[in-house]
Amino acid sequence: MTQVPTRGGRRRRRDGGSTTSARDVNYRNLVNPFPTMNAVSDDEAESIHQTALRVLQELGVRVLLPEAREIFRAGGALVNEDDLMVRIGSDMVEAALASAPPEIMCRGGARHRDIVLKDRGLVFQPGAGCPHATDLERGRRPGSGEDYRELVKLTQAFDVLHMVPPLVEPQDVAPNVRHYMMMEAQLALSDKFPFVFSRGTPQVQDSFEMLRDFRGLSDDEFMAETHCYTIINTNSPRQIDVPMAQGLIDFARAGQVSVVTPFTLMGAMAPITVAGAMMLSHAEALAAIVLTQLTRPGAPVTYGTFTSNVDMKSGAPAFGTPEHFKASLLAGQLARRVGLPWRCASGSAANIGDAQAANETQFALWGCLLAGSTIIVHSAGWLEGGLTISYEKLITDLEVLQMVAEMCVPTEASDDATGFEAVAEVDPGGHFFAAGQTMARYQTEFYDPLTADWSNFGTWSEAGARDATTRATDIWKSALQRPGPQVDGDRLDALHAYIDRRTQEGGAPPES
Amino acid sequence: MTQVPTRGGRRRRRDGGSTTSARDVNYRNLVNPFPTMNAVSDDEAESIHQTALRVLQELGVRVLLPEAREIFRAGGALVNEDDLMVRIGSDMVEAALASAPPEIMCRGGARHRDIVLKDRGLVFQPGAGCPHATDLERGRRPGSGEDYRELVKLTQAFDVLHMVPPLVEPQDVAPNVRHYMMMEAQLALSDKFPFVFSRGTPQVQDSFEMLRDFRGLSDDEFMAETHCYTIINTNSPRQIDVPMAQGLIDFARAGQVSVVTPFTLMGAMAPITVAGAMMLSHAEALAAIVLTQLTRPGAPVTYGTFTSNVDMKSGAPAFGTPEHFKASLLAGQLARRVGLPWRCASGSAANIGDAQAANETQFALWGCLLAGSTIIVHSAGWLEGGLTISYEKLITDLEVLQMVAEMCVPTEASDDATGFEAVAEVDPGGHFFAAGQTMARYQTEFYDPLTADWSNFGTWSEAGARDATTRATDIWKSALQRPGPQVDGDRLDALHAYIDRRTQEGGAPPES
Repeated sequence: MTQVPTRGGRRRRRDGGSTTSARDVNYRNLVNPFPTMNAVSDDEAESIHQTALRVLQELGVRVLLPEAREIFRAGGALVNEDDLMVRIGSDMVEAALASAPPEIMCRGGARHRDIVLKDRGLVFQPGAGCPHATDLERGRRPGSGEDYRELVKLTQAFDVLHMVPPLVEPQDVAPNVRHYMMMEAQLALSDKFPFVFSRGTPQVQDSFEMLRDFRGLSDDEFMAETHCYTIINTNSPRQIDVPMAQGLIDFARAGQVSVVTPFTLMGAMAPITVAGAMMLSHAEALAAIVLTQLTRPGAPVTYGTFTSNVDMKSGAPAFGTPEHFKASLLAGQLARRVGLPWRCASGSAANIGDAQAANETQFALWGCLLAGSTIIVHSAGWLEGGLTISYEKLITDLEVLQMVAEMCVPTEASDDATGFEAVAEVDPGGHFFAAGQTMARYQTEFYDPLTADWSNFGTWSEAGARDATTRATDIWKSALQRPGPQVDGDRLDALHAYIDRRTQEGGAPPES
Repeated sequence: MTQVPTRGGRRRRRDGGSTTSARDVNYRNLVNPFPTMNAVSDDEAESIHQTALRVLQELGVRVLLPEAREIFRAGGALVNEDDLMVRIGSDMVEAALASAPPEIMCRGGARHRDIVLKDRGLVFQPGAGCPHATDLERGRRPGSGEDYRELVKLTQAFDVLHMVPPLVEPQDVAPNVRHYMMMEAQLALSDKFPFVFSRGTPQVQDSFEMLRDFRGLSDDEFMAETHCYTIINTNSPRQIDVPMAQGLIDFARAGQVSVVTPFTLMGAMAPITVAGAMMLSHAEALAAIVLTQLTRPGAPVTYGTFTSNVDMKSGAPAFGTPEHFKASLLAGQLARRVGLPWRCASGSAANIGDAQAANETQFALWGCLLAGSTIIVHSAGWLEGGLTISYEKLITDLEVLQMVAEMCVPTEASDDATGFEAVAEVDPGGHFFAAGQTMARYQTEFYDPLTADWSNFGTWSEAGARDATTRATDIWKSALQRPGPQVDGDRLDALHAYIDRRTQEGGAPPES
């Protein structure tokens, strides 16, 4: 596997449509090329870490699942069964951080889709968890199974997206069978690393079973490697509810990865300060990580955060703000203290794919990049603070992600690139269009944009004066027509038979 | 003068309109808080520098102004009067870099408007040099004197813009008197650091005279400090034309600052590679810097670049691309080798203020920020690769600049900010809206956005579903109503009398 995007001469379809490029791009296995930025001094970061340990030890976390409290108790925590509070010693935290693996190999449906979660790795996810979907042709609507399938296809279609998240909630599919539909779509339409909701053990076990059989694995083989992930949001402040605690336990037992993500909004569910909100987030993340390691030492788990601020006049969440950026930087410092791969998030609170939406999403993205985040969630298509995923914004944001991926290619500084000969070849005031260096490189030297239109105003006006969002409609529609991954027909039949049988049996309720 | 934005309790109008904020912001004298990113290794950067020296010594630069060739010749260069080529030795370059000042104090019309150009300084300029202006109410049109005056007012209105550039070309003002109109607008409507076009000695001398008298300075006082700047674009490749060479000489003699900016588009007027285009840009910048130092050792001059790529299918310039970003990074490395403050540029090739425009401008901005650029030009409002300045995009881009300026405020990590007490105060699953820490800080803790709308979809829809660009119209119209700077009425009268007299005398043609 290469570590950086590669360039070559093979022709490759970029958007599944009519245009082709001579550039062969590979946006997989990216390594973050950007320098790391700290929010506070090392001493201050350590002090925040110590304060979080003090919160865990002196104040504790409320854990709603009895089984989880028992695991904590057996691991040495002080558990109060009256108020359900669990107090966790710093020795337990340090032991958990020592046993959690610093690198996690995540298996996709094909070897070139495997991703390694590790320090300096750079993994992009599109927007996730949205109850609504929107596009210019069909408008804003409650998310459906069809929306989910289309968005999985779009996630598959672009190399720079590395994991399949729960893009949209398929609200037209009954909750007791929704996990079948979601797993079937991920396996049939994508070979990228799939997601499983932690909505109770029955659904999680069904999902593991489907995935195990579709990958052609035994139980032992499945559990020996990481084939899927879940996202664990705590109920800030200082609470882990039943399905989240159960998810941490179920995933740890099965060797699958929990991406721990306290969602702390400064001034609402968290202190109003960057340092305070991240301190709380850190404490909650550590509690969740401890639970995974008490369940199964060495279980794959990531650190994570999603910390931004609210508008103190209305209580509305905001994303892509300076405070969001600073919280990401501080999370990065604490993640490095912890020594685990970690997730951070971009996003926008805009209601439409306008300049605000683009600016907030990209500003938040730079926070994640300079923080050294391993997994960047909500990096494309996420509007209204996550209430809606936009097909068009997915495309316009992908342009930025692809440009970031291009930055992973080192800048060439060979003698030929430095170009003394090329400069000598062209007279003062002349041009380089016909220079030998230009002729040798013009087909592959530059990034070929996905949606940007660089034509002049006259040409652009005559062509209909279409803005980037309007142009993006063509691109996602075209991308939906691309062929999906190679799928084993027998295994797909078996998956469908399993789903039919389990559906007839009543499915599985979203409960533990 | 403070070095970072400050916060306090004074109420301050933010957009000149009806809203007020409890936050007192100061976006002046910013220090770049972001880590520096290199494009190539130190050895490779040195090799590119040495190749540029070789270009100057072996190939030379064509200099069209006889006086400039004579200055070069007297300074030790090999001058060929047949082909007008000037070959410059590396010893001359090193001597010039040794005599050029590493810091430049630039005087505005009030002491709090002074800016210091120096390493790690961060100075923003809005878009410059546009032949057209556009806004949603009046549409796209050739730039006029009225547009210029309005855009100077908008530059004055926002603290985060530090210099007045030639925002738009006032095409309805005759070329022989245009410099009067532009200087009058800058002095009457702004107290920020003003710009003078290098369009020949007569216009430059008129401009110096107007500025000197309006500031109440003697000739000696004027020349002893830096009160205005010009931009020097070379005619790449390897050519310095008459007005540019004359500008370098005139500004150096008068102690005013030339911002040297070869404009090299990879594959067009420069080699197709990042390293090649920047090598050429570097050689041309060094030639211009040498001319200033031969004219007057110690004259203020900045290094600079504006290097991006073209679409090799159409030849159209592109901005905010990965290649633009890498060129900025490489320029930063070469600027650090040179040891001078330097300018870099953002920008967009989009035809409208859409997601492409926002994304390209911000992506290019991050290239400048991580490159450690001192002056970031075209950082707001620049569309169509500089053919049009948009009033609305000026506002939406300002939001990003203000958020960057907020990043210059250190993240607080005191015990109170870290918030153990705040966390202890709130029960698990509760909220922090009424916590003591929140109550003490809620009016000033967060950045207060200029144009972002964080209301929910229903509220936003009921209010007219206006996008950020549409909302920006209200903001610039409101900002135009803000009071301008304090101006000495007698001096303004004298300025007007001077302009009347000079206009009656026929003005000054744009020639040397």
